[in-house]
Amino acid sequence: MKIKRKGILFVVSAPSGAGKTTLCRRALERLQGIEFSVSYTTRPPRPEEREGVDYRFVKEETFLNMVERGEMAEWARVYDHLYGTPIFSLDKAIEEGRDLLLDIDTQGASQIKAKFPNDTVAIYVFPPSLRALKERLTLRDTDTPSEIKKRWERAEEEVAMYPFFHYFIVNDVLEDAVKELVCIVEAERHRVSRIQELKW
Amino acid sequence: MKIKRKGILFVVSAPSGAGKTTLCRRALERLQGIEFSVSYTTRPPRPEEREGVDYRFVKEETFLNMVERGEMAEWARVYDHLYGTPIFSLDKAIEEGRDLLLDIDTQGASQIKAKFPNDTVAIYVFPPSLRALKERLTLRDTDTPSEIKKRWERAEEEVAMYPFFHYFIVNDVLEDAVKELVCIVEAERHRVSRIQELKW
Repeated sequence: MKIKRKGILFVVSAPSGAGKTTLCRRALERLQGIEFSVSYTTRPPRPEEREGVDYRFVKEETFLNMVERGEMAEWARVYDHLYGTPIFSLDKAIEEGRDLLLDIDTQGASQIKAKFPNDTVAIYVFPPSLRALKERLTLRDTDTPSEIKKRWERAEEEVAMYPFFHYFIVNDVLEDAVKELVCIVEAERHRVSRIQELKW
Repeated sequence: MKIKRKGILFVVSAPSGAGKTTLCRRALERLQGIEFSVSYTTRPPRPEEREGVDYRFVKEETFLNMVERGEMAEWARVYDHLYGTPIFSLDKAIEEGRDLLLDIDTQGASQIKAKFPNDTVAIYVFPPSLRALKERLTLRDTDTPSEIKKRWERAEEEVAMYPFFHYFIVNDVLEDAVKELVCIVEAERHRVSRIQELKW
């Protein structure tokens, strides 16, 4: 039996500090046939980040030209920097039946959902508690106090967005959260509505 | 963080011989917080079957009285016997937040889906190939040749019903199929639309 289907965009959002990036990385190690969608950003790389793997680091001018030409599926200004995902890379993955994992903020998630309503699965990651979130935000030592404060206010706004997502994951025990994300991907691959062609 | 939700009815259907019953049993061993929904039937028990565990074995009169009083959520005549699920046990599970696994035929599945549209997740199990299905149907040695033939005709009708289900599983390698069923259950438990109450 052979089943053909399009690629799926798994969009994962969370308030900053919910541990989303680690969760996504760990789930990707476990999953077959899914790639990390590399966002474009104008922010400078952190020491451990690699060009083309974590982000594509571009100049603001380059980024804004892409926006002007309508090439971005989603983009947003977060603090002082721009983040975005080009349409062509999503279109290509969907067409070729490759699944993508997109680690983006809630604004971006809703733009992707609106542009690709049948091909997007939106997943919201909750921190185990608001107190845990505050702790995690405070511990990230590369940020200044004012950045932490901005991050915290933004986190509260972002948590309020969860009803627009398809799935939620509570990132309390990381290993459980990873399993849940893996399961959401596997389950969505088995939705009847995604079958394009079925051959016996 | 505390999330309250209603119970979910996981309805699993398949053409006879697709290995659905073994698949369900194995998935139940792996899952927490889900029970097997015991159907009522008028057919005599097979040697290995236990009353109240595999089925509730009842007289045809008892069964038809329940149907007449509108107490059955789904019921069907399959070959010469009646099979059904009482509404009260489903209502109770949903209300109490307990998940149920229902191993029923496609007629029953569509009745459940119609009666509990927001609380039902319908899963269709495919045999790996039509040839594999034919082999499995022929090997079950408790059936007579005419029973096998009826079963085979019915299997073809049942396979055509898959588009009315939410998920599909191809039961080729049993272990993979079990994992997929487990993942569908876990994923559906994490759907945002099922959240009734969320407390930080």
